[in-house]
Parts: sequence; structure tokens; C-alpha cells
Amino acid sequence: MYGAGDVRVEDVPDATMVEPTDALLRVTRACICGSDLWPYTQMEPAETGRRMGHEFVGIVEAVGADVRTLRAGDLVVAPFAWSDGTCVFCREGLQTSCLHGGFWGGTTLDGGQGEALRIPLADGTLVKVPVAEDDALMPSLLTLSDVMGTGHHAALCARVGPGRTVAVVGDGAVGLCGVIAAKRLGAEQIILLGRHPDRIALARNFGATDVVSERGDEAVERVRELTGGLGVQSVLECVGHTLAMETALGIVRPGGAVGRVGVPQHEHIPTTSATFFDNVTISGGPAPARAYIEELMADVLEGRIEPGRVLDRVVDLDGVPEGYRAMNERESIKVMIDF
Amino acid sequence: MYGAGDVRVEDVPDATMVEPTDALLRVTRACICGSDLWPYTQMEPAETGRRMGHEFVGIVEAVGADVRTLRAGDLVVAPFAWSDGTCVFCREGLQTSCLHGGFWGGTTLDGGQGEALRIPLADGTLVKVPVAEDDALMPSLLTLSDVMGTGHHAALCARVGPGRTVAVVGDGAVGLCGVIAAKRLGAEQIILLGRHPDRIALARNFGATDVVSERGDEAVERVRELTGGLGVQSVLECVGHTLAMETALGIVRPGGAVGRVGVPQHEHIPTTSATFFDNVTISGGPAPARAYIEELMADVLEGRIEPGRVLDRVVDLDGVPEGYRAMNERESIKVMIDF
Repeated sequence: MYGAGDVRVEDVPDATMVEPTDALLRVTRACICGSDLWPYTQMEPAETGRRMGHEFVGIVEAVGADVRTLRAGDLVVAPFAWSDGTCVFCREGLQTSCLHGGFWGGTTLDGGQGEALRIPLADGTLVKVPVAEDDALMPSLLTLSDVMGTGHHAALCARVGPGRTVAVVGDGAVGLCGVIAAKRLGAEQIILLGRHPDRIALARNFGATDVVSERGDEAVERVRELTGGLGVQSVLECVGHTLAMETALGIVRPGGAVGRVGVPQHEHIPTTSATFFDNVTISGGPAPARAYIEELMADVLEGRIEPGRVLDRVVDLDGVPEGYRAMNERESIKVMIDF
Repeated sequence: MYGAGDVRVEDVPDATMVEPTDALLRVTRACICGSDLWPYTQMEPAETGRRMGHEFVGIVEAVGADVRTLRAGDLVVAPFAWSDGTCVFCREGLQTSCLHGGFWGGTTLDGGQGEALRIPLADGTLVKVPVAEDDALMPSLLTLSDVMGTGHHAALCARVGPGRTVAVVGDGAVGLCGVIAAKRLGAEQIILLGRHPDRIALARNFGATDVVSERGDEAVERVRELTGGLGVQSVLECVGHTLAMETALGIVRPGGAVGRVGVPQHEHIPTTSATFFDNVTISGGPAPARAYIEELMADVLEGRIEPGRVLDRVVDLDGVPEGYRAMNERESIKVMIDF
């Protein structure tokens, strides 16, 4: 990406291994992420392009001398952050804060919206997938790299549990995965705040019990009507806009929690004194997708969840710029790249 | 209180019962609270005085026809909010959000810094104390009305537990009770951020392992030095000033939690993008002191905790204005009123 709206498919030098803990990965499928749309709409023009893509599955082509758990030919899913798996934060399940890890793409590392990547700290980062690369479950397994793990993280941060009342702010791919996660964790009422008929239909299929399409104060009022005037116990904030956070804080009930996973486009959280006096908890951040892959994969493999259904358009590598356009114009919920 | 610095002891009509769920209470001991100092320094002059005081113990003088669990002669502790004990929030242990409850004092209800109060919803509100009114444990039992419960709440919201690293921002009575709470919950390292030698000595006695007396960025740096560069897992924010919250967010480590109980003097929480990217949780609010009284009382009665030691000055009713002055000028940590 060279600037807002300027996505190019270019030949770059082949990915290579540098450290003995690296692996070399050939990408088989990848995604465009809602968070990729922030630079797509806002990035200043740059001379050096930024490599894009942080959600991908692929085949291990080669491994460095110190890689112990992987070998050439393994099909793997990569979380959107790479991590050593051994530091204090990884051991606590917060791999996004790994002391030696980092994020894909940019100007120094390979991106997942490309044919191959150097994978640093391969043992800590990659998770083997026990199916063939053309398996029908592959789109759902691909979502474990980010959106499904992110929806799950939002739900955990919002303390979703059996019998809880939940609202999901945002009907993007993460919001829809948030609905799946809330249902999976036993929520009793799941209110989706969204406006797009196709996404609403999918959300209902995933387990949403109510839909609120109003915005701002009207949305807050509607959610209160749906919850006996109290508000919900758990809010999954899956957008990142100030208005979305204001809405989240407006609909959470006393003692409730907001799990925010939309990358904040605001500096300060737009709280009011009610946030304090109502004992509202604000939690969340980038999901440690790595921590959740095994648990969620079991549900995908057993057919209990189908997050791959959020991937409603497929492009090839040359189609990536068109994929960005389609997602940005809300023609597609989420685009999969099939290499 | 008629305005900043203007505290008067006046005769008012006798407290009386209004509802059959009321009790009439004769106060035996009460406190001045750190939160009383906000109006003491900021209140606009008013024609109608505001009745003050929300931390007190006393003897039940009479009960209404519908009161089932109390009778005349009972010695009781009152939490700083009254509550029915039966609504959805009370059942969840968040009595400060009771649908039918409220707070003492102001212009319509009696205040605890007076000789007697009407106690609404007495069954839900009051807790019997199984000792005599002049028992040596009475100061510690009195702190269960607010500060000890508030320190405990901060610790729970900050997710203090066995082996955790903890910082307590603020060396007031709540911060000191936060040290007690952190120690009681098994924290391994307890860093007090405070500057007053007498309070620091008490904090060390309560279990603080380290003291940081710098402020702002220097305090953040010092705490990082004390924690291997990582920051602490739990921060108890016991002040409410913007700087205190900034410091709290600066010293919390990735995946950590800030429990805030100081009444915020800011509108928006002064977060930075690091709060999100580090997956920091912000929680807290007014403590549901009622929820914690029985559990903490057991520890007071067994002598395992001595929060009453924060009450380092005693006045009689006429001495209340002098008590405010002494607390405001930091001559006293916390003042007890002995009737």
C-alpha cells in the first residue's frame, strides 16, 4: 500500500530465512482485514510501499535449524502477531505483547497478502492444521488468524458467560465473529447493533437474538428497551470509532464490561462519570489470537462454529486491490484471497 | 457544609422513621472521608447546608414494622450506600447501584456526621457487629463502612491475587487500606506511591514492599525499575486526580488491570493508545462496601487486619470542623468522630 486507496500487486525479492528459528511459508489463503481499511482510507502517500496482510494460512516450505515443532509440508495457520511462545507474556496468553515478537508487514517484514513470508519464531507462532489445504473448513480455519480470535477476545474481555445479556457493536466480520463467540460462551440474549441486511441475516444465523439498527442515543434507548431498562452485562465493541465506544458505554449496565477490539480512532476513551459510578469495566485490545487457536479450532473441526461464512468474496492475488475497494464500499463483509 | 471550608455543627430536627422498612440509628462513631474533602475544597457557597457523613456505626434505637433482621439495641455498621438487598444489582453484589437505594446526606437525608439518622431499607443496609460499642476493634469495624471496603474493591477490580505484582497509587486512608487488601489477597510485591513519611511507615507495616515517592514520569520510571522493566500486574488508583490515573496507566504492564476507586476529577479517562495495544483493563467505581462487610469483618474480628490504624485522630461532634481542616492539611490521615 502506497497511500489511501493505492494498493499495488508487485514483485518483491523472494522471502528468505534469516534466523535459525525462522520458517519459510508459502501462503495458500489470506484475508483482507477491517483494520487494513484504516490505512486504505487514511494513509499518507509514501515512496516506499507498506507490505500488507496479517491473516493467512499456508504450507511450510522450509524450517531453520532451531525449529523443533514444524517441518516442510505442514499446513499451518498464522496468528496476526508472531511470538516466541516462551516469554512472560506468552506464558500468560498475551502473545500480542511478546517481548520478542511483532506484527506482519510494514516496510521490513513480509505481509500475508503475498505469496510467501519469512516467519520469525516459527515454533511459537505457527499452529498446525490437521486437514488438507483445500478442505471445506479452510475459510473457517483461516479466521482463527484474526477475526474469530478477535471476536472471542472481545467476548472474554466483556466477561460473556452463561445466561448473560450481550450487545455487539458493529456488524463487520469481527462483530459477526463476536456473535459466534457470545453464543458459544452461553450468552442468553445477543443484541447486534448493525445496519446491513446481509450482515444482520448472518448474525441472526450465528445466534443474535435482537437487532438494533438505530445509531447514537436512539440505539442506546432501543437497547435499554430490550433489556428492561437496565442495559446489557457485556458489550463487544468491534468498531473503534468514538461513536461506537460512546454507544458501548451507553448501553452497558452497572457492573457490566465493555470488551473493545476495534482499533481505537480516538485518543481518550469517551467515558462519562457514569462509567465510574456504575462500576463499568473497560477491557480489550489486540486479541492474542495465538492463545485461542487450538480451542477454537476444535470447534471448527467439529462443525460447532462456522466463522468462515463471514468470508463472502474470493479474489486471487491480482484481485487484491479490487478486494480492498469492495470491502471499503461495504459490498463485501470480508474478502478471502485464494492463491 | 455550606461551602468550601465552611463546615458547621448545627441543631436540626430529630431524625424520624418514615417508612415501615426504616430504622432509627443513634451514631456512636463516624469518620470524615477523603471524598468529603472534594466539596470541602470546591463547594460553591449555598444557602441550604449539605448534611455530611457516610461512614458510621451506631445503635439501633427503633425499627419499622417491616424490619425483620434488626431490633433496638443492635450495634451495626452502615455501608456508605443504602440498599434493599434484593434487587438485581444487590443480588449481584453491586449495592451501590441498588434500584431503590441511595447515598447518605445531602439536603434530603440525614448524614453520618451527626447524632442520629433515619436508615431507609434497614434490613438491606445495616450489618450487625458482634462486639460491644467500646470494643478496641471498633475503629477497624468502622472502616468497613467505606475505606477498607473501598481498598478491597480496588484490589478486586485490579485483579490482585496470589503472587501478583501490585502498585497502590495514593497514600490516603483508601490507599493504605488498598495495601492491606493487596496483602490479604496474596500479592507478592506491593509498591506504594506516596510521599508522607507517617503514611509510608504505616503502609510498610501493612505489607508494602516498596515505596515510590517520585511523581509523574519519574514515578513511572521508578516502578518500571522495580519490576524488571515490565510494570505491575495490578494498580489500585486511590486518588482520582488526572495525574494519578495517568500514572496508574503508565505503570500497569500489558494484560494488567487498573482498579480505580478515587472519585474521578476528570471527565475522560486519560488513556493513550498503549492502554489499548497493551490490553489494559480499567475497572472500578464506588465500592459496594455492603457486599464485603461480612468477609472483611471476620478478618477484623480475628485480628488478621487492622484497618482502624488509619484513623489517627479523634474528635467529638464539635470538633468536626477542625477534623476537616486537619485532614485537608494532611495533618491527619483520617479523622474519627467519637460521639
